[in-house]
Amino acid sequence: MLATTMSKPGGPEMLEITTVADPVPGPDEVVIDVVAAGVNRADLLQREGRYPPTPGAAPYLGLECSGVVSEVGASVDRWRVGDEVAALLAGGGYAERVAVPAVQVLPVPSSVSLLEAAALPEVVCTVWSNLVTIGRLERGQTVLVHGGGSGIGTMAIQLAALIGARSIVTCGSQRKVDACVELGVDVAINYRDEDWASAALESTAGRGVDVLLDVIGAKYLEANLRALATGGRLVIIGLQGGVQGELDMGRLLTKRVSIHGSTLRARPPIEKGEIVDQVVEHVWPAVEAGSVRPVIDRVLPWTDAAEAHRVLERGDNIGKVLLQVGVAHPNR
Amino acid sequence: MLATTMSKPGGPEMLEITTVADPVPGPDEVVIDVVAAGVNRADLLQREGRYPPTPGAAPYLGLECSGVVSEVGASVDRWRVGDEVAALLAGGGYAERVAVPAVQVLPVPSSVSLLEAAALPEVVCTVWSNLVTIGRLERGQTVLVHGGGSGIGTMAIQLAALIGARSIVTCGSQRKVDACVELGVDVAINYRDEDWASAALESTAGRGVDVLLDVIGAKYLEANLRALATGGRLVIIGLQGGVQGELDMGRLLTKRVSIHGSTLRARPPIEKGEIVDQVVEHVWPAVEAGSVRPVIDRVLPWTDAAEAHRVLERGDNIGKVLLQVGVAHPNR
Repeated sequence: MLATTMSKPGGPEMLEITTVADPVPGPDEVVIDVVAAGVNRADLLQREGRYPPTPGAAPYLGLECSGVVSEVGASVDRWRVGDEVAALLAGGGYAERVAVPAVQVLPVPSSVSLLEAAALPEVVCTVWSNLVTIGRLERGQTVLVHGGGSGIGTMAIQLAALIGARSIVTCGSQRKVDACVELGVDVAINYRDEDWASAALESTAGRGVDVLLDVIGAKYLEANLRALATGGRLVIIGLQGGVQGELDMGRLLTKRVSIHGSTLRARPPIEKGEIVDQVVEHVWPAVEAGSVRPVIDRVLPWTDAAEAHRVLERGDNIGKVLLQVGVAHPNR
Repeated sequence: MLATTMSKPGGPEMLEITTVADPVPGPDEVVIDVVAAGVNRADLLQREGRYPPTPGAAPYLGLECSGVVSEVGASVDRWRVGDEVAALLAGGGYAERVAVPAVQVLPVPSSVSLLEAAALPEVVCTVWSNLVTIGRLERGQTVLVHGGGSGIGTMAIQLAALIGARSIVTCGSQRKVDACVELGVDVAINYRDEDWASAALESTAGRGVDVLLDVIGAKYLEANLRALATGGRLVIIGLQGGVQGELDMGRLLTKRVSIHGSTLRARPPIEKGEIVDQVVEHVWPAVEAGSVRPVIDRVLPWTDAAEAHRVLERGDNIGKVLLQVGVAHPNR
């Protein structure tokens, strides 16, 4: 089969489509003929050699895909050849075919096309597990998310509304602020125009936010703690602003807050399967009903993976960037 | 009544017994005639002016006491005049009488004397809420506690055993190591003799500990993260080793660990009441049965509060230091 590979780590120009061995499903796995793959920031780090592939997973880029099941492992009874699915991957989405544990596979909601479905697994599983399971966000509480226009941000706005929580996002442009407002965010702060932490405190009458979903890390650590309410939870899923943070532990204790480091990719399949099950139970009905929808910035042919990476690096996108790999099943 | 007061913040010599106004119980409060008060590290900070009294609480030192109920607020039906009790206080234990929300009052287990009961509320509520509610310590998991010989440490060893968890402590002397072993700790590490984090990792076959209860803060932050297992919880309840910590957020994410800042004193009575209820349900039966017991280093007359503070400052004690304020009820 063909897959997007790199002869060595480097810039987007290192990505090339080459012939590799076909995946062979383990007894608990299925093989998916990929229709589309989602592009994630973690892919950029992996391309640069700063986030090595998970042991045992396909070594190629790609943490989510949609497609059609083409092989089923001996112990799998949940899926059949021909099923249209989306999947949360540990790697290998930028390829014609990928093997994935059956527990990480989701059905395609009838409200979205098979291609669009590739925009859902990573952001929905990431946002749900971090806001609800780790962050314990509840109805009536407030969540703040950095990068409101990102794939994560656009989904967090929608899932906060689904939970009945109030949402605040930070954005780097008026265009993104407008898009977040369109999606129903309660407060969108342009961090280039004002001190976002002060604005967040102001919009909560000085109380602070209950949950803060952060992709920045060190650069925002102090301001994140400042923006949290007493008893608040800071969930860190990315370190775009650096790794070594200065932690004011006095504030940590006085406010009785918690800081959670979280990554999805490295979790074992059993944990990913639990997250997938929760998402199918709690989020998929809202996707079916159209109240939660994939926000897709653009779809590029997978031969343009380098350009897709550049879009994310520039932060040009609002919502997800997808790579179309194959052609959707004729009956859709 | 008489209470231990300070004309201004300072050293132990600032403590003096003076005449103050009697406490008046609110409708949800009781007044306790104090028999004994526990001495806690937080008292030392408050004495130095570094931990101001909780608004609304008695301004005098003392976070726990035992004694006899002498007045009952109009809305209280749980307690009666003459009841022998222990209580978790927001302040005011170093006094002849103290008013306290009724929800923060506990019965005295029959296995301990009224005087000894003063050694229980703060350490049991602190250890239970931090290990179980915040740290989610479970049977079969491993907990590490710094200061194994302290009031917190000696209780944590016993409550870990009650839960069915494995316990590791760090201590600063062989005498304390021996005392912890006597109390049933699984591993006691003398941090003066060896690198405690490496020793903890070794004693968990490299896996690390599931929960780490820390009173040190900044100085141990790096080593604490190193000693944690994947998915581990670091619960910080004291900052004896400094406030400004350097946080390796890469490790935070890779290990998917969480850091929790926690204080008991500042929590509202409703939260303290929930903790007290859990302690009475889950820990008091074990105290009744004698499998969990107060570990008391010494009892001093409350005129010697300064000496009691010096004992804690030197770290001389194994277990709790108590101040005897009144004489126990004649019928005990």
